[in-house]
Amino acid sequence: MLALRVEKKSVSVKEVEKPDRADEALVRVLLSGICNTDLEIARGYAGFKGTIGHEFVGVVEESPNHTLVGRRVVGEINAGCGKCDLCRAGDSRHCASRTVLGIHGRDGAHAEFLQLPTVNLLPVPANVPNEHAVFTEPLAAACGVLERVSISKSDRVAVIGDGKLGLLCAQVLALTGASLLLIGKHSSKLRIAERRGIETATPKQAAKRSKQFDVVVEASGAAAGFALALDLLRPKGRLVLKSTFHGKTEMDTTRVVVDEISIIGSRCGRFTPALELLKKDAVDVDSLISEEYALSKGVHAMRRAGVKGVLKVLLRP
Amino acid sequence: MLALRVEKKSVSVKEVEKPDRADEALVRVLLSGICNTDLEIARGYAGFKGTIGHEFVGVVEESPNHTLVGRRVVGEINAGCGKCDLCRAGDSRHCASRTVLGIHGRDGAHAEFLQLPTVNLLPVPANVPNEHAVFTEPLAAACGVLERVSISKSDRVAVIGDGKLGLLCAQVLALTGASLLLIGKHSSKLRIAERRGIETATPKQAAKRSKQFDVVVEASGAAAGFALALDLLRPKGRLVLKSTFHGKTEMDTTRVVVDEISIIGSRCGRFTPALELLKKDAVDVDSLISEEYALSKGVHAMRRAGVKGVLKVLLRP
Repeated sequence: MLALRVEKKSVSVKEVEKPDRADEALVRVLLSGICNTDLEIARGYAGFKGTIGHEFVGVVEESPNHTLVGRRVVGEINAGCGKCDLCRAGDSRHCASRTVLGIHGRDGAHAEFLQLPTVNLLPVPANVPNEHAVFTEPLAAACGVLERVSISKSDRVAVIGDGKLGLLCAQVLALTGASLLLIGKHSSKLRIAERRGIETATPKQAAKRSKQFDVVVEASGAAAGFALALDLLRPKGRLVLKSTFHGKTEMDTTRVVVDEISIIGSRCGRFTPALELLKKDAVDVDSLISEEYALSKGVHAMRRAGVKGVLKVLLRP
Repeated sequence: MLALRVEKKSVSVKEVEKPDRADEALVRVLLSGICNTDLEIARGYAGFKGTIGHEFVGVVEESPNHTLVGRRVVGEINAGCGKCDLCRAGDSRHCASRTVLGIHGRDGAHAEFLQLPTVNLLPVPANVPNEHAVFTEPLAAACGVLERVSISKSDRVAVIGDGKLGLLCAQVLALTGASLLLIGKHSSKLRIAERRGIETATPKQAAKRSKQFDVVVEASGAAAGFALALDLLRPKGRLVLKSTFHGKTEMDTTRVVVDEISIIGSRCGRFTPALELLKKDAVDVDSLISEEYALSKGVHAMRRAGVKGVLKVLLRP
């Protein structure tokens, strides 16, 4: 089968063996999405070698759990050991010996087939098209912010970064009823949020609102975004770190201590709330799709996904 | 009256006017304690000029509230505007226009007299000697950790730093019943905690316990302490930042996001819990007193407080 592979910091589409573990489900990929993490991995992040990709929708072809066969599914990307306290409590996201689809120890979704444990798979509601379902994983990551901080209607919330993740976070957090500001540099991207009734600002405009926010979500992945986030927070405010950064980031610890700021890391979210939002069509994901390519054009697609202004690039096997 | 002043990064004992605001209480200082923040201020931190010092016990000589006159008191160091939402809710610690005793906009405690609003003053229980009462402010700061994170008996907690603040934090957190490890480099300081039944380790020994702690309190003020703290935390662990650092500090944001760490700034604590602990003699502060000097020897005392191995230096007007 065809697969988009990263080996020695080089990306290529290759013919590889179809996965064949009998204890996991075999999923035929219908559509996969290129994430910024894929671009980072291609640059060496996480030291991963193999098939990349962790956003997908597919159909189960084989499974130890026969009721899944033929079902259209999405899949949680962390596959736990199943034995540790965390896994037994039903949350493998921090299992110390987990593998992660297309990121750590497990071939990923930019391929004709992938495999995952059956517990990771969730059927997709019939009214959700593939082009929406493929956003389940990043939308779950956006919903994951609400697993890490509680937000009330009276909170003033800012999201920094108008990329895919920032646009999803802004839309999800706007649904809480809190007052929301999306901060970004690209008017075409900000317009996607504006069409949903979300207020937007450039970083320069936002900087005038120092210490006015209860919660700031940093989703730009830039050191400047982190510094702006700290500046926007009121004393005792909460900063949700949603993006890993390029390299290490400087932090003004005096500000964090004196104003008793909380900095809260947030990674993967649960899929169920994301599927609910897609089922209700509560989030605009259509506007986030920039381009679509055949899997065989995966190398070109990766290059396009890294171009400024391009949002989600999809691959169709 | 005599006062220990910082002006143009230089420390000196000077004769100054006695404070005379009629709307605040006038307190005759019995004893004051030199804090690391005093040393930082002398180096230029916070841009403060005036009388330094914020740890004290004294006697009220004059007060708009006559019931306080003649009472032995300690005093919360943040003096709020009294009008904003925070102040009206009874917590001036984050009032945007607050002054802070000996730190920001208000002369401090290393003097014969100081003044504070009457609402800031708390009577000292009769059984608490001056040499203990003078620790109320730093002990309150240690108790303040528990205002920012909840700690249960099943939590594994580490405190990094065997200075005054670390030793107070370790003792306070040990009282929660959680398993506690104090990490420091100085065996004579660690012994103070060991005598209270607290387990101790050097940073090198502690580094072998990577990802094993639920809560880590960083009280060393060193960048290496911050890096160790991140390393010791389990996924979803909580890092309490108790010290400001010298300059800006590098943070491994990837670790914070991937392992969903929370970094929680903590500054001042409420005085009431600290006075309760002193009243019950639940914390050993005697062992933290290294030296005592007359206020007139304040410059020498500041120098001594900065010497490695020296813990609390007290000043007696």
